[in-house]
Amino acid sequence: MRIRDRLAADGGGRGVAGPGEAAGVMAVVVMKFGGTSVANIERIRNVAKHVKREVDAGNKVAVVVSAMSGATNQLVAWVKEASPNRIYDPLEYDAVVATGEQVTAGLLALTLQDMGYKARSWTGWQIPVKTSAAHGAARILDIPGEDITKRLDAGEIAVVTGFQGIEPTANRISTLGRGGSDTSAVALAVALKADVCDIYTDVDGVYTTDPRIVPKARRLPKISYEEMLEMASLGSKVLQTRSVELAMVYRVRTRVLSSFVAPEAMRAVDMKNLEDIGTIVCDEDEIVEQQVVSGIAYAKDEAKVTILKVDDKPGVAARIFGPLAEANINVDMIVQNVTPDGKQTDMTFTIQAAELPRALEVLKKAKADIGPFEVKSSDDVVKISVIGIGMRSHAGVASQMFKALSDKGINIHAISTSEIKISVLIDAAYAELAVRTLHSTYGLDGD
Amino acid sequence: MRIRDRLAADGGGRGVAGPGEAAGVMAVVVMKFGGTSVANIERIRNVAKHVKREVDAGNKVAVVVSAMSGATNQLVAWVKEASPNRIYDPLEYDAVVATGEQVTAGLLALTLQDMGYKARSWTGWQIPVKTSAAHGAARILDIPGEDITKRLDAGEIAVVTGFQGIEPTANRISTLGRGGSDTSAVALAVALKADVCDIYTDVDGVYTTDPRIVPKARRLPKISYEEMLEMASLGSKVLQTRSVELAMVYRVRTRVLSSFVAPEAMRAVDMKNLEDIGTIVCDEDEIVEQQVVSGIAYAKDEAKVTILKVDDKPGVAARIFGPLAEANINVDMIVQNVTPDGKQTDMTFTIQAAELPRALEVLKKAKADIGPFEVKSSDDVVKISVIGIGMRSHAGVASQMFKALSDKGINIHAISTSEIKISVLIDAAYAELAVRTLHSTYGLDGD
Repeated sequence: MRIRDRLAADGGGRGVAGPGEAAGVMAVVVMKFGGTSVANIERIRNVAKHVKREVDAGNKVAVVVSAMSGATNQLVAWVKEASPNRIYDPLEYDAVVATGEQVTAGLLALTLQDMGYKARSWTGWQIPVKTSAAHGAARILDIPGEDITKRLDAGEIAVVTGFQGIEPTANRISTLGRGGSDTSAVALAVALKADVCDIYTDVDGVYTTDPRIVPKARRLPKISYEEMLEMASLGSKVLQTRSVELAMVYRVRTRVLSSFVAPEAMRAVDMKNLEDIGTIVCDEDEIVEQQVVSGIAYAKDEAKVTILKVDDKPGVAARIFGPLAEANINVDMIVQNVTPDGKQTDMTFTIQAAELPRALEVLKKAKADIGPFEVKSSDDVVKISVIGIGMRSHAGVASQMFKALSDKGINIHAISTSEIKISVLIDAAYAELAVRTLHSTYGLDGD
Repeated sequence: MRIRDRLAADGGGRGVAGPGEAAGVMAVVVMKFGGTSVANIERIRNVAKHVKREVDAGNKVAVVVSAMSGATNQLVAWVKEASPNRIYDPLEYDAVVATGEQVTAGLLALTLQDMGYKARSWTGWQIPVKTSAAHGAARILDIPGEDITKRLDAGEIAVVTGFQGIEPTANRISTLGRGGSDTSAVALAVALKADVCDIYTDVDGVYTTDPRIVPKARRLPKISYEEMLEMASLGSKVLQTRSVELAMVYRVRTRVLSSFVAPEAMRAVDMKNLEDIGTIVCDEDEIVEQQVVSGIAYAKDEAKVTILKVDDKPGVAARIFGPLAEANINVDMIVQNVTPDGKQTDMTFTIQAAELPRALEVLKKAKADIGPFEVKSSDDVVKISVIGIGMRSHAGVASQMFKALSDKGINIHAISTSEIKISVLIDAAYAELAVRTLHSTYGLDGD
């Protein structure tokens, strides 16, 4: 199944409909387990029990696994140690780092065999998961699913390495970048026409906000792709952004579950009732009682840069943001204030905190072009976002937000909005207060 | 290049002749480094310096690497831990264990790139190193060398994973078994028509005997394939037996060198003078001053089994050794003594010590078939061997050996011989005395 081509052919419509949905008995299930879930043989055995539950219930199962937690970090550290004098070759990086998933895939296949099941491991190049040549951050182009589908039909469990594929022109191993295993799982679900893609994580679902900050946070039984995409891109680490994009394009019903619930305490996938556990990421049409606001997200790794007293000539924004874009530094929020005399302007924008030193360097070099200015920066800020697909049809969500924060004396430095999201930049000290306040304001508090 | 076919076509004649030999300036060199030589990044950097020396001298280099020492043991331990209830699937074992070499190949390629050289890593499946389907102990069938040769000609260093290949029918990763990287190196040398295959080890060559036992042991500048084969199969761990067999069949000039000599202190490969360092394993014709005896080997991991008072009926040997062969237990020496009355016989034979418990089990089960007997066993024995291609044309080597041991009061339990080797089984306590005595007897002592 050509992932790119399906997009063109289906126009992003619902492309995935497995036998389970029709028959109501047997489903094709892709299960994905991250690094902490396969950190040692005991945990891999726990994963195998989750798989066993599904197979025993008559479901056909493909499992996608990450590397043992810590393994990838060790491999990356070696790559860096081997390259003290230059940026390492991403092709060799991929060849080294991709071994982590190969180990866990083999070990899980062995564990399943030891429990009496038919299973085999698949590396990215064996399937093959064909990707672009952007080594280290490759994109999946095509996964032929016929071979694995035949084996699933014959009762074999497929154990697939996440995070990796092959660049077919040069026949070199490629990796998808950090968190890429979620994307592997969703893409495999597309290729296998799976009924559901179950992503097992260390949390038991997607919450209205971080339960560590707001004890009254509630698990969302369902969330739309669009909302999940905002959540993911705003720093909620439950699912990788690209996996949600892919799920949205191909309408893959994706579920977030906990791998630390005892395998026996969970029910096997039943397409008639997926909602009793975890969170289903799905089409908004499937969500009956849609709230105006679904969740509150926050992102700590923001930095604020303010450029003071620039001459307000035409093209000044381009002269500031052009060099940043060329340096691949993503600018998020932008606020511009013209001085009272109208001759100078202050420009405030936000970037990822990790990019701050590089951004200041870029601005310094561009000074000749921009003209004289002063610069202030701070990474002592957070971005708080209110997300809800209901905003499309409900006015007043933004003003409600600004009033609630103002009532608590929280100053807003910058604002950005999308159709289903409002984000504000505030001082880091107020992060928890802001999240708790907004959680209550939009009626999200549980019991 | 079809490794199997070349054997048929060439009739085992000298098939390898690279440009270096003709031109006398540039050689195609395969260099192999084992696990201790690539145990960490610092050692990998040392390996890279050995490679640099060869490339700087104008040689074309393909490097074969093992896994970091300890890595393979960890992977094998995980495989066993994942399979408590059954013998593990060798296909999955191979998929897991083959990752070790993939890591080191990538890291060495990165290190060479960091030093400013063109280099890339090759896995077994990328070349592809096609093997038989005997997973865990696969045999190399074919290595196409054209692609790598072209890249060597263009100045690129090939870094190749040892120990592994691909079984092309099922497209599954295969491994060659422990020590297989030596075999990978020799096979690659055949495929690349290399001038020399340099095996870097933790010793600086092949010695007349173990220098830890006999301080007067001398490094042999040359040794014939046949002698090296006997050495390898008798427990001298310098080269893996199969690699020597392959080198002999294809007449690959194979050199044993130390990787712990400072890379700068060694001269680059010069086909006109390979003998100044290490040991060359080569055709006996190339060895001008051939000694009658080249070396003394010993093997500690032997066990002796004596079956006492068996009825001496026709076919009794078959009834004893048949079941052992069926259980894949290799019997080495056999001695039979008929009792004075001629009705019963005692049968002594040797096996690998590790096989002793299994062998005793097999014999117990076969008792109904063999008839009543008593059994005694001991692993407190060693096998001492005198090896020399000169024995073919010199009589008296054996009687010299027996007399020398007898003079020291060393009792011989069993004897076996081949055209170029005499082995005796003696009590372990006498091992060192026997080796030292024979080393002097045959004039092997150095200064």
